[in-house]
Amino acid sequence: MEHPVKTFGWAARDPSGVLSPFKFSRRATREHDVQLKVLYCGICHSDLHLFKNELGFTTYSIVPGHEIVGSVTEVGSNVQKVKVGDKVGVGCMVGSCRKCVHYNSVDSDSTTTYGGYSDILVVDEHFIVRWPKNFPLDKGAPLLCAGITAYSPLRYYGLDKPGLHVGVVGLGSLGHVAVKFLKAFEAKVMMISTSVNKKKEAIETLGADAFVVSREPEKMQVAADTLEEIIDTVSAAHPIQPLISLLKPHVKMVMLGVPDKPLELPVFPLISARKTVAGSLIGGLKETQEMIDFAAKHNILPDVDIISMDYVNTAMDRLAKADVKYRFAIDVAKTLKTE
Amino acid sequence: MEHPVKTFGWAARDPSGVLSPFKFSRRATREHDVQLKVLYCGICHSDLHLFKNELGFTTYSIVPGHEIVGSVTEVGSNVQKVKVGDKVGVGCMVGSCRKCVHYNSVDSDSTTTYGGYSDILVVDEHFIVRWPKNFPLDKGAPLLCAGITAYSPLRYYGLDKPGLHVGVVGLGSLGHVAVKFLKAFEAKVMMISTSVNKKKEAIETLGADAFVVSREPEKMQVAADTLEEIIDTVSAAHPIQPLISLLKPHVKMVMLGVPDKPLELPVFPLISARKTVAGSLIGGLKETQEMIDFAAKHNILPDVDIISMDYVNTAMDRLAKADVKYRFAIDVAKTLKTE
Repeated sequence: MEHPVKTFGWAARDPSGVLSPFKFSRRATREHDVQLKVLYCGICHSDLHLFKNELGFTTYSIVPGHEIVGSVTEVGSNVQKVKVGDKVGVGCMVGSCRKCVHYNSVDSDSTTTYGGYSDILVVDEHFIVRWPKNFPLDKGAPLLCAGITAYSPLRYYGLDKPGLHVGVVGLGSLGHVAVKFLKAFEAKVMMISTSVNKKKEAIETLGADAFVVSREPEKMQVAADTLEEIIDTVSAAHPIQPLISLLKPHVKMVMLGVPDKPLELPVFPLISARKTVAGSLIGGLKETQEMIDFAAKHNILPDVDIISMDYVNTAMDRLAKADVKYRFAIDVAKTLKTE
Repeated sequence: MEHPVKTFGWAARDPSGVLSPFKFSRRATREHDVQLKVLYCGICHSDLHLFKNELGFTTYSIVPGHEIVGSVTEVGSNVQKVKVGDKVGVGCMVGSCRKCVHYNSVDSDSTTTYGGYSDILVVDEHFIVRWPKNFPLDKGAPLLCAGITAYSPLRYYGLDKPGLHVGVVGLGSLGHVAVKFLKAFEAKVMMISTSVNKKKEAIETLGADAFVVSREPEKMQVAADTLEEIIDTVSAAHPIQPLISLLKPHVKMVMLGVPDKPLELPVFPLISARKTVAGSLIGGLKETQEMIDFAAKHNILPDVDIISMDYVNTAMDRLAKADVKYRFAIDVAKTLKTE
């Protein structure tokens, strides 16, 4: 029996919300496993939720990171999907239990799984995403969570057809990726934001077709009953009645953000026009591969601020204040150092 | 030009919530119109909401009533659908504006429309439901609102297939009709109620297959992730998170009741398992005719307490306290008297 491989990364040891260097082991590469050297790892807001134990189920120490791209360094004897040297992605799932949080859970060998803020990863090939040739590794990394989260509901709910009028609420990391995918699907996109300051960016840079400030009732009224779907990416508690009023009858609003408090659900607008509130979270491996291939084909990349490993605590503070446009990714390979 | 027809009924004159005799006119029967003598009229909870102006848009005087069965007394020159003497139903819509509240709105001839707590009704034949032969007029009347409200979402959301596991929340007038339709569609029905006192009725009388008390977390836990859809008929504000937990992933809860306050919507359960909260309200005329024919074929009738016109204020007080099993209907023809 082979021995585990010693590696290192950055971990939180307690809910204080500080990450620091951490040594640990990965399992030995099993017959269906792929070992990879981590090159880049995106920072997702749920990393922050998790290492601060804001959802209540974190066990420490925790190495965050589930938007991982790397280079294959070793493959098990039965691996078909990739070979040494291939560039690959690993997203939100690494185990067949299909739990959405892939790190900090108990792995199939009873050890704790650790995320991608680390040097070496070992994962079953089923959970490997083949990286498209010439597709940027650094900026592409966040697609493995933010990308699939925005893409999956568009496919699942049939928003991948040209000409649909779709609203996107919130111009953050999810929102701006959603707009990019929707434009690739040739939708007419209305960006809905609390701040008029985002209008120029939404229209001129991202290519949204319309922009409306959700706090301006008169302008919201003009847009009432015009949208064939809404993708709501806002993670803070916010009023949804004004958003529901933008929907045509018989269509739905899909929530992607996870507010920490229940939202106020007005029932009459749902009943009177058969409107629907739904939710969606990431997607399966098959769809994640499809998303990455689609993104590469249409040159869809999130706007990413590449940082060094030792900037991660500052980055987390900025993320908590939404002070990032739109996503951080860590240059792990160049900046993660052994102590 | 023909003259309007003088008639009478019971109306509220102000939001005090008292109904009293009222004289008014109906339009003369136009070429597509049907005039009918009202025989029975069901009492819907929305009658109460409306004549007390609880939704804020009532104009007085208001004659309530939108679960009307009657006998045709006159037809316009171009009417195809029915002939004098036919038994017919009139439900929630009488105008092509398709507003859901048919009485107390402005009619196509600019007069106020009045409801079925009255002697004579004049309505375009499009909004006439042909009454099935030998189908009870008195007990059948409430189907024109409560029936179609329960039936429409079952058809619209594909719950009309045998063997589906469907939950019905609330054993009131909507809930008990929903169970009857679902059993006719050969569903497995779980009744969900706040009170264990309703178990015997739900199982033994209505034929529900299972019963769970929503306030007993351990028993709700046993039923978690088992239902393929939930029909929520509760009109009071109530917690929906425990109900959502009963749904299998990727399916929906359909709200039929209209709580007067927003509900608390927990977002994570929607997102993590792609569950959906939807709403539904009545149905179109084609579907209403289909529902009545289906009800007649399967002998589906609500449990109705037949009352006299002068009992209506007492009935309203009892309705406000949910002290009725399950629906009142007024014997208009026998008990509405000219002053």
